Formats: sequence, C-alpha cells, structure tokens
Amino acid sequence: LTTPSTARRPVSILDVARRAGVSASTVSRSLRGAHNVSEVTRHRVLQAAQELAYVPSPAASRLVTGLTRTIGVLVPFASRWFFSEVVSGAESALRVGGYDMLLYNIGDRASRRHFFESLPLRRRVDAVLTVASSFNEAEQAALTGLGLPLTMIGGRATGFHRVGIDEESSAATAVRHLVRLGHREVAMITGDPDDPVGRATTRARRAGFRRALREAGIEEHEQQIVSEPWGISGGVRAMEHLLSRARLPTAVFAESDEMAFGALQTLRRSGLAVPRHVSVIGFDDHEMASAADLTTIAQPVYRQGEFAARMLVDVLAGQNSAATDIVLPTRLVVRGSTGPVSEDRP
Amino acid sequence: LTTPSTARRPVSILDVARRAGVSASTVSRSLRGAHNVSEVTRHRVLQAAQELAYVPSPAASRLVTGLTRTIGVLVPFASRWFFSEVVSGAESALRVGGYDMLLYNIGDRASRRHFFESLPLRRRVDAVLTVASSFNEAEQAALTGLGLPLTMIGGRATGFHRVGIDEESSAATAVRHLVRLGHREVAMITGDPDDPVGRATTRARRAGFRRALREAGIEEHEQQIVSEPWGISGGVRAMEHLLSRARLPTAVFAESDEMAFGALQTLRRSGLAVPRHVSVIGFDDHEMASAADLTTIAQPVYRQGEFAARMLVDVLAGQNSAATDIVLPTRLVVRGSTGPVSEDRP
Repeated sequence: LTTPSTARRPVSILDVARRAGVSASTVSRSLRGAHNVSEVTRHRVLQAAQELAYVPSPAASRLVTGLTRTIGVLVPFASRWFFSEVVSGAESALRVGGYDMLLYNIGDRASRRHFFESLPLRRRVDAVLTVASSFNEAEQAALTGLGLPLTMIGGRATGFHRVGIDEESSAATAVRHLVRLGHREVAMITGDPDDPVGRATTRARRAGFRRALREAGIEEHEQQIVSEPWGISGGVRAMEHLLSRARLPTAVFAESDEMAFGALQTLRRSGLAVPRHVSVIGFDDHEMASAADLTTIAQPVYRQGEFAARMLVDVLAGQNSAATDIVLPTRLVVRGSTGPVSEDRP
Repeated sequence: LTTPSTARRPVSILDVARRAGVSASTVSRSLRGAHNVSEVTRHRVLQAAQELAYVPSPAASRLVTGLTRTIGVLVPFASRWFFSEVVSGAESALRVGGYDMLLYNIGDRASRRHFFESLPLRRRVDAVLTVASSFNEAEQAALTGLGLPLTMIGGRATGFHRVGIDEESSAATAVRHLVRLGHREVAMITGDPDDPVGRATTRARRAGFRRALREAGIEEHEQQIVSEPWGISGGVRAMEHLLSRARLPTAVFAESDEMAFGALQTLRRSGLAVPRHVSVIGFDDHEMASAADLTTIAQPVYRQGEFAARMLVDVLAGQNSAATDIVLPTRLVVRGSTGPVSEDRP
C-alpha cells in the first residue's frame, strides 16, 4: 500500500484508474455516485482513490459536468455591515449546499464598469447572487445573458429570483412611530436616489415616508427630504443641512442606521439632546444600533443572505425553477432615541 | 462576419481554430501571448476570437496552465467591520492583478473544522490569504501542504508572508495615553486568549498593556484584565464585571473598538459619564469610532488587505519569492472618551 501522498504533482484520475484496473470514466462515475457502476467496482475505485489520496480536479470535473460548484456573489462593498451580514448568511447556506463563493465588488463606478466589461464570472459560476443593487438595461442584459439562475437581495429585476423586505411599508412604520409620539415636523435623511447602489432602496423608503405623512394629514414639503451620499458622513452632512434651516424638525427619519449614526453625531456636537430636542429613528438594526440606543426598523439581513443562497442551491438541484419572491418581515425596535415632542426646544 | 454571439452554448477554442484556419494549440498560444507565433497568425486568431465573441474557458485553461487566476481568502466572519475592510482592500488589489477571490469563512468552530477537513480550495486557487487567525499545527500543515504561496494578515506562522501591525507596541501606546492623563487604576477588556480567532491579537495586546503599566511603575494585578467573548456584547459584559467590583477603575483599555462600544453602552446605562467617571480607549478606529467619539488606536485595515493581496499577486508573477514581513504604522486618535482623572467620581 502507498501512504497518502502530499506530493505537489496531483494524483490524476488516470492513476486511480490504473490502480483500480478500470477506465477513467468508470472512476469518474464511481466517485460521482452514478447508478451504472456495480458495488464491487465502486468499492475498488473508492479504495484506490483513498490509497492515493486522490482529489478530483475541480477544473477537470468542470469540463466533464459543466458545473463549477461555485456561486458568484456581487456586492456593493459600500455598506460594510450590510454586505458582511449578507455574505455571512449566504456563505453558511452555500457551505451546507457544497458550493464555494466567488465574491465581486460592484460598489463604486470603476469596479462596476470593470465587472460588466469583463464579466469575470463568466463560465466560472453556476449561479449569481446580487446584493442591494440596481442595474441599468445593459447590465441586466449582461447578467441574464449568462444563462444562469439569478437571485437578487433588496431590489427587483426581471428574470431574477428575489429575497427582500417590504421597503415601503417598513419605512411607513418608522414614520408612523414618530407621528404617534406627536411629531408633525418630520424630516427624512436619505442617500442619493440616482446612485446605482441602493437606488431602489432609497426610492422605496422615501415613498413609505411620504405615505405615512399623507395618512397623518401632514402637508408635504420638498424640503423635508435631505439627500447626501449614503453612509455615516452623509448622515453628518444631512443633519448639518437641517440645522442650517430656520426651523428645526422635531423628528428625523434616517434611511439607514448608518446615516442616523452620523445625524446623532452632528446633534451631539451641536449640543442638542436626543430625544428631548430631536427624535431620531433609523432603519436596519445595524449591529451598533443597540449600543447607540437608536430606535430603528429591524430587518433580517443575515437571513436574507441565507435564504437567497439556499434558493439558488435548490434551483441548481432542480428542486425549484419558478421565479420566487420571498418577503421577510421587519419590526419596529423602540430604543432611547425617540420620544414625545417636548415643549423645551431650542 | 458574424455578430458577437450571446448564445448559451459557449464558443469553443475549436470554433476559433476553424475560423482562423489554425490548430487549437496555436489559438491557445496566440491568446496567451506566447512568443512562438507569427504576428500574422496572431492577428488572424485574435480577429476570429473577436468575431466569435470567444471567451477562453477558465476550466480548460486551468487544465493547460495549471493556474486558476483565483486567490482563496480565509476570514473569520466574527468581526464584521474588520473582515469587510480587509476583504475590500484585497478585492481591489486582486482585481487590478486580474485575480478572482474565493471567500471562505473559518470564524466559528464548525465552519473551521469543515474547512480543514475538506480543504475546498484545494486545486481551485493559486494562493491563499488568511486574515486574523491562529492555526494549530495540523491546520498549518494542511495549509502549507497545499504547496501554494500563503500570506497572513494580523498573525504569524512559519511559511507565510505577513502583513500586519505591531500589536504589542500599539497597545502600549493606548495605555501610555491613559497614564499620561494621570490614570493609575487601569483595566483592560479583552477577548478570550484561547479562542482560535484573534488569539494572537489578544495575547499581543495584553502584553502591550502589561508593558506600559510596568513602565509606569504600576503594580500588576490579575483582576485588571477581564475576558469575555470578542465583540460588542462581550464588551457589555466585561464592563458589567468591572462595575461589580468594589472599586471602579478610572480608565479602561478595550482590546477592540467593538468591545469599547459595548463598554460605553454599559456605562451609559449605569448613569456613569465618559470620560468624567471613566475614560475609555479602544483599538482599530472602527468606522463607528468617530460617531461614538471614541479615543482609539487607528490601524490601516483596508491597506493591510490591499498589501497582502498585492504581495501574492507579485509572488505569483515571480517578482517576489522571499518570505516578507510588512509592518504598517498605527496612530493614536484622541477623541472625547478619554480625559484626566477627575475628583468627582462615584
């Protein structure tokens, strides 16, 4: 018997075939668990493979089966927390399904252009999972042109399976919480509605904001919505805009917790107390929201990654082929950053 | 002329060979830019490839060249911010170098065991980048047994190139800042020194803490170091331990900003003011540290990912083969969470 080898020249399928006294295709069928191989032969092949410490070559098996056992994941690295939560969830479901994950950043314009020009995942993956992105027509055509199962988290596109939340209703829930506390001068801090990353989210959350204000009979002014680049520093700047106005709103709905964190920072530096002077509500339930005592709308980010990946694994196993749209629930989390309108305001 | 095809059956190298009137191996050599092909032939092949919108099959070229043009990245998903910063930096350098990134989570014991049992990256990557992990002997043998270039960020292992910071000196810098403010009752909040994730970091930062106390002539008590699982909620609990003692330290050094955020939360909920009652310093300069007004030690996380990936790209291009150890600088960032010892303490 040979001891298992750790040599650098990989043991090939031909070595196994020679040792087992069968053809290479019989080795391949035995290892894949195909039915047209006798138990005796399969046993002989497995033993030979084990003795030689044979590892099937992914490249060779890719040529035979056409499968890569890999899923391409496209993420805008912009929101670090959201992206890493989604990727963690997807990774765990892919691992269970026996798939690897090729990760691509399409967060900034340069990486996005590069990705769509070269489509590096072409012929390297069996399916594609996209996170929190909007695609223009050409980009969408490039992805559907791959002929692979596609799933999108937090967004919507023809030909994609979808996992997400009801963005508009969830945003309306946030604003209703403020209205119930007596607030009628409510501003919203959002990202850029024309930014390809998060465009769909920004638009839907704005719609929810407007809907809840309409329901409460609060007049809509354009100035109630302030736009800055998505993120903590965008939140800082957006709050600075609001502080530059003659009249401060009594409450602020931030499109994301990260923008809310920036707003809280500006308020603290301006000597304003939360919620005594201004109430602030965010969206996401970011891992830092509890530490910042931020009232928010919790969405299940890890689970969206998990669901989306599992959906692709099922589709690839032939268990699910109809386009699916899974909407996961969100919930209001009340913490210390929101409170009733106070008389004691600057 | 044929218009570029978006058909699902991929154009094969044989189609290109047929159209160009040459052999498949000539097509392969032409596209790889090999020298033994005439300019006329190369031009004919490139034109045929372009007309057919031919994309070389990664699997086929892998069989020919033995290269995957892919780097495996092993990350403990535990610290979401650190991991996503490193991955962003690595991704950008790999993209420039023409490599894809296969991402594996080895954060919890289950995923770690699964990874080392099955070594899914075997024969799928050209090199391996590991982030903030310590490996036992068997794990290290498994990785070096791959026979591939290896780089480690934030840790140290034989046979690995390394990119990191001087953990011990940087931790000592944090503690010296507290000592200069007059603090002599200083506690440290750390992760579990036996946890495979971050073990090296925890031990080195503790050593720096002890070194700075010794330098200042401050007696060392075992109780000055509190251990809880790494992360925000670990920080919450560690601060609760400190609050349970008869005498509160005047200052706390948290091993990471995330643990510091948890400590700040516990202090706020206990009605204690920072820095009036307790000064807090963290480590990392997490994206939230500024919003939390946390004094900390800034380390260049994105750049560590970038450097480590670029190093592997260089090694694979034959430009760098000696084992390298790159130490990047850190710096003290003074914000509002630290201040002089106050007389007014509870």
